[in-house]
Amino acid sequence: MADQSFAPGSPRVLVAGATGFAGALAAQLIWRHPGLELVGITGRSEVGRRLDELYPRYRVPLRIAELDLDGVHAEAAVVAYPHAAAAPTVAALRERGTRVVDLSADFRLSELATYEHWYGEHPRPELLADAVYGLTELHRERIASAEIVANPGCYPTAAVLGLAPLARAGLIQDLVIDAKQGVSGAGRTFDETTHLSMAGENILPYKVAAHRHTPEIEQQLGELDPAGRELRVQFQAHLVPLDQGELASCYVTPTRAVEQAELRELYAAAYAAEPFVEVLSTPPGTRDVCATNFCRVFAAADGHTGKIVVLSAIDNLWKGTSSQAVQNLNVMFGLSESEGLL
Amino acid sequence: MADQSFAPGSPRVLVAGATGFAGALAAQLIWRHPGLELVGITGRSEVGRRLDELYPRYRVPLRIAELDLDGVHAEAAVVAYPHAAAAPTVAALRERGTRVVDLSADFRLSELATYEHWYGEHPRPELLADAVYGLTELHRERIASAEIVANPGCYPTAAVLGLAPLARAGLIQDLVIDAKQGVSGAGRTFDETTHLSMAGENILPYKVAAHRHTPEIEQQLGELDPAGRELRVQFQAHLVPLDQGELASCYVTPTRAVEQAELRELYAAAYAAEPFVEVLSTPPGTRDVCATNFCRVFAAADGHTGKIVVLSAIDNLWKGTSSQAVQNLNVMFGLSESEGLL
Amino acid sequence: MADQSFAPGSPRVLVAGATGFAGALAAQLIWRHPGLELVGITGRSEVGRRLDELYPRYRVPLRIAELDLDGVHAEAAVVAYPHAAAAPTVAALRERGTRVVDLSADFRLSELATYEHWYGEHPRPELLADAVYGLTELHRERIASAEIVANPGCYPTAAVLGLAPLARAGLIQDLVIDAKQGVSGAGRTFDETTHLSMAGENILPYKVAAHRHTPEIEQQLGELDPAGRELRVQFQAHLVPLDQGELASCYVTPTRAVEQAELRELYAAAYAAEPFVEVLSTPPGTRDVCATNFCRVFAAADGHTGKIVVLSAIDNLWKGTSSQAVQNLNVMFGLSESEGLL
Amino acid sequence: MADQSFAPGSPRVLVAGATGFAGALAAQLIWRHPGLELVGITGRSEVGRRLDELYPRYRVPLRIAELDLDGVHAEAAVVAYPHAAAAPTVAALRERGTRVVDLSADFRLSELATYEHWYGEHPRPELLADAVYGLTELHRERIASAEIVANPGCYPTAAVLGLAPLARAGLIQDLVIDAKQGVSGAGRTFDETTHLSMAGENILPYKVAAHRHTPEIEQQLGELDPAGRELRVQFQAHLVPLDQGELASCYVTPTRAVEQAELRELYAAAYAAEPFVEVLSTPPGTRDVCATNFCRVFAAADGHTGKIVVLSAIDNLWKGTSSQAVQNLNVMFGLSESEGLL
Repeated sequence: MADQSFAPGSPRVLVAGATGFAGALAAQLIWRHPGLELVGITGRSEVGRRLDELYPRYRVPLRIAELDLDGVHAEAAVVAYPHAAAAPTVAALRERGTRVVDLSADFRLSELATYEHWYGEHPRPELLADAVYGLTELHRERIASAEIVANPGCYPTAAVLGLAPLARAGLIQDLVIDAKQGVSGAGRTFDETTHLSMAGENILPYKVAAHRHTPEIEQQLGELDPAGRELRVQFQAHLVPLDQGELASCYVTPTRAVEQAELRELYAAAYAAEPFVEVLSTPPGTRDVCATNFCRVFAAADGHTGKIVVLSAIDNLWKGTSSQAVQNLNVMFGLSESEGLL
Repeated sequence: MADQSFAPGSPRVLVAGATGFAGALAAQLIWRHPGLELVGITGRSEVGRRLDELYPRYRVPLRIAELDLDGVHAEAAVVAYPHAAAAPTVAALRERGTRVVDLSADFRLSELATYEHWYGEHPRPELLADAVYGLTELHRERIASAEIVANPGCYPTAAVLGLAPLARAGLIQDLVIDAKQGVSGAGRTFDETTHLSMAGENILPYKVAAHRHTPEIEQQLGELDPAGRELRVQFQAHLVPLDQGELASCYVTPTRAVEQAELRELYAAAYAAEPFVEVLSTPPGTRDVCATNFCRVFAAADGHTGKIVVLSAIDNLWKGTSSQAVQNLNVMFGLSESEGLL
Repeated sequence: MADQSFAPGSPRVLVAGATGFAGALAAQLIWRHPGLELVGITGRSEVGRRLDELYPRYRVPLRIAELDLDGVHAEAAVVAYPHAAAAPTVAALRERGTRVVDLSADFRLSELATYEHWYGEHPRPELLADAVYGLTELHRERIASAEIVANPGCYPTAAVLGLAPLARAGLIQDLVIDAKQGVSGAGRTFDETTHLSMAGENILPYKVAAHRHTPEIEQQLGELDPAGRELRVQFQAHLVPLDQGELASCYVTPTRAVEQAELRELYAAAYAAEPFVEVLSTPPGTRDVCATNFCRVFAAADGHTGKIVVLSAIDNLWKGTSSQAVQNLNVMFGLSESEGLL
Repeated sequence: MADQSFAPGSPRVLVAGATGFAGALAAQLIWRHPGLELVGITGRSEVGRRLDELYPRYRVPLRIAELDLDGVHAEAAVVAYPHAAAAPTVAALRERGTRVVDLSADFRLSELATYEHWYGEHPRPELLADAVYGLTELHRERIASAEIVANPGCYPTAAVLGLAPLARAGLIQDLVIDAKQGVSGAGRTFDETTHLSMAGENILPYKVAAHRHTPEIEQQLGELDPAGRELRVQFQAHLVPLDQGELASCYVTPTRAVEQAELRELYAAAYAAEPFVEVLSTPPGTRDVCATNFCRVFAAADGHTGKIVVLSAIDNLWKGTSSQAVQNLNVMFGLSESEGLL
């Protein structure tokens, strides 16, 4: 079972923080990846246990170790730590020459002040400028040579992929994003929001007018806007009773009237060459992207209101987190972008 | 079991179309209601079967009969037929002196042209003017004496209750409504949208830029606007994997800046005396209103965007359909509005 | 909302331990009961909060207090404490003249040694002899005058109601019980067994060959056996991904050949007069008893194996716990047994 | 996307009946299999549509065709037809030299009379003798050269893998199997048993004392018994509200006393070399085998009753159906048994 095979000379990858949902899935995807070698998994709990005891389905037979920075012999690491806890480890790994895909928010925001507003003091602000935002479809050229890749939040992944064609065309005047996510988004949190007898039969909005993913979305869409306008996004998240799945429903008041035909061309042009973004002509359901790295997008011009409705579906744990990390590793090491992900 | 008790002289009520989810629940609520007498249940299928075989939980021991209009001896009827099929039966009942709460859309829209745009030819357009829209909280005075009460759609119920205080204050400049609903909203439809292996682990938007509930919401909010402005609502519905529950997330661009304190007063004033609307200071989850006639509402001013977020939760089958029908019957017959509903 | 009405002179009832699933539901059922007066709810956490904040659906507007034994002015109490924690409180209440329905296991087993084998030292063993086992259908006469009623476990409720007719007829030679339950059976436990992303898509057997409900079932069935034979029951429990519902599938090797017709008569005779047990001619699903005090039973003779299959469905929180407690209160105070439960 | 790669000279495989759950999953597994070439998919409905429209997650870009037997150029076929409909197609394929893995029950039972008792007339009884029962772990040598492989039912797969070590040791005196399965077991059936609002919150036993999988289990266990004793199995199936997953809980009255240590050795010896059967020391949950070809088994001797409890978990659509078909194809064509399945 443990005779996983990969090409000789494959980049060696460490997963730090493999006991949570995101780290464990990253470990599995790297373990079964033909072009990457999983050389270690670490955790701050469960040390000594095999990952396939904690996550039998993932079938990774390695044991969880404590992180020993001096013992790391890896070209890359995926760091799956909580916000603020990640930055020092990312910094230490980088100093040892290990390239990092960081799943936390620590390096996603380019403005230190914005980070501090939402997350508090930044442990290693001097590294912010070096990090590349890891939404592969938007930044793959910079990711290819990045030392630190800040893997996007799951909501920004769905929302920005859905809206990028409009942002680039300067079409977004006003924007509401209503996002829904399964319970895996809460990770191994054991409380009222994840108990099946409380999360079941529930649709639960949370963090009203205060979600940390808002500035990330605004930063990314703002960068795409040809006129450099600042965008204020109304973002609202909801928990719904499923495991993995996320839908961003985006309502755009456009800067000018837009017809369906133009939308069709805009999206087709934007994503025709993308291996993991599919433009649909009907609304996407999250089930159709479950356990995949795909994002499925549908954009509709509403003649009644003049608005544009964009629906963007991903698996929050896959494209929203761990499989996008692998997509980024593929880009960072010159592998085929879809290797190990189809 | 069948010795249900009610006061002598209680209004006699018929439920026509008791085999579907909505009709069956209406039958149960009337059966156990201390002030109403359920005198018959009819259906176009399952004739002769007892309702407690079809819906054992509801424990209504009556048999389903074919509708015999000449044999109806009832002061009121709840009609749970599909759109367009309802109107002729409503008309016939009314001619025999039976007051009707109609669960279909046939009498909800005051403009014939609007009805015909969304539903096709109207079978009895001459009755449109007589019907009263049955959102109890908005129209209880006219409902009290109505011959035909057009019970609202479930989405309009949640959305209009959430937005009425803003509409009345003339505060709605622009409006996006993102609504989510459990699978019971599809009724006894047996297809890909309701199969547990397809609806499970799915978040599925449907009827993009084309939902029939849009004009109903626009009509009701428009009537409340003090300036009589016409409103174009961006409405989008989604199916999520639960049974009963519905959340309308409403995003309002206000006509002027609004602070949280003003919102709080506006909503408190609007709903202080309402037995079934609760104004919260935290976001409402649908689980908390499941199997109740309550609507729970939360409104928040977002200083970042200047918008107002309104979250409104109901049980789509209860307040969204059948228990609101009973609330209307209570009003129509001078009973306490909450009788049989607490 | 708080103007709950009940007959003057109604027995006053306290619920001790109202913050858990079972205590909260008991509080609701007593609150809305026309013949009982809920005079207080206590908890060891959440003191000062209203119960309708914790459980909005239940709509009980009372505040949780610390238990002050000297301040109890109630004819009865429902004690919803963990095993071993319950007995001292039960004893103290009884000394003050308050009759108790105890939801814990502390007084269910008549043999002290059996209790100590499964639960450890018993805090108040001298009271064991006084307690009456609260499976209403089997012991209602003794319950009527009991000071302490030991409310049954949910699994024993389903299993014993399903098997009592066979046990009384001396027909059980060998017995396997395979029981399945929703996640509410774990209560407000926040861990891997209740997290929706772990309990979802899971069928999880637990406590193999070691479930504490086994001796309770053996004791009850043994008492019914006309020959007084000791029965060894193979009992196995499973968690399945739903909220409330429990099915006991019982496989009986009979002491002699039994035909379907005999089974039919046996069960019809046993339960014809019971208000809350329904004998079916098809297999019962748990959904049909959800949020009810009913138990639905089906017994089939299998000509192929000579065995008898008995399927017994209840709602684990209702008939399995809290509504059965109310059924017992009805019996204890001479009310109609189904009052407040239909 | 359609550039699936496989070794030159890979066996070409057709999937007949690819529109149902089982056929579609078989098509996906073969499509992405490095050692098999998927040359066609057929269906009696949806002809002309791409499979990735019907099952987007599976990402098979081929179009569904009508089955043209003369146009089949394939070394093997997986036939996913209903019972009785499969046999003629299996026969026709075999006459053209195509080896078949048949997912139906048509060739699972060696006795014609048993088949006819449960399924009615057999369309091609003369082929029964040629077919090999496709429980890979038990019959891989005969499967290697078989022309027709009768892929097992999902319940027999779980049950027989769980019980084979006991059967071979002659230890099964009496046997009860209580099996639970997710809703995908019902396939694309659209009715009360699969509607989320009816199957949700339900535990539903079905086909009491009459399940078609009983003779299959009896045949397989009987063949293993060293004394050739005939076994009568008490088998009961239940639907539970999840998608993919199946647990067989088996209760064995042994022919002699058995200790846990002996069980441990028996199971370790039986499955040490098996790539897809894992013997646990704790109860298996179905979630841990979801979307895998693994079967996880736990056996416990119950000192209290003297019985043996065996718990066996699989994914009904994978090891219970489609991935076992691929495991069999691997064996039939001399590939590594786990190729394409890890």
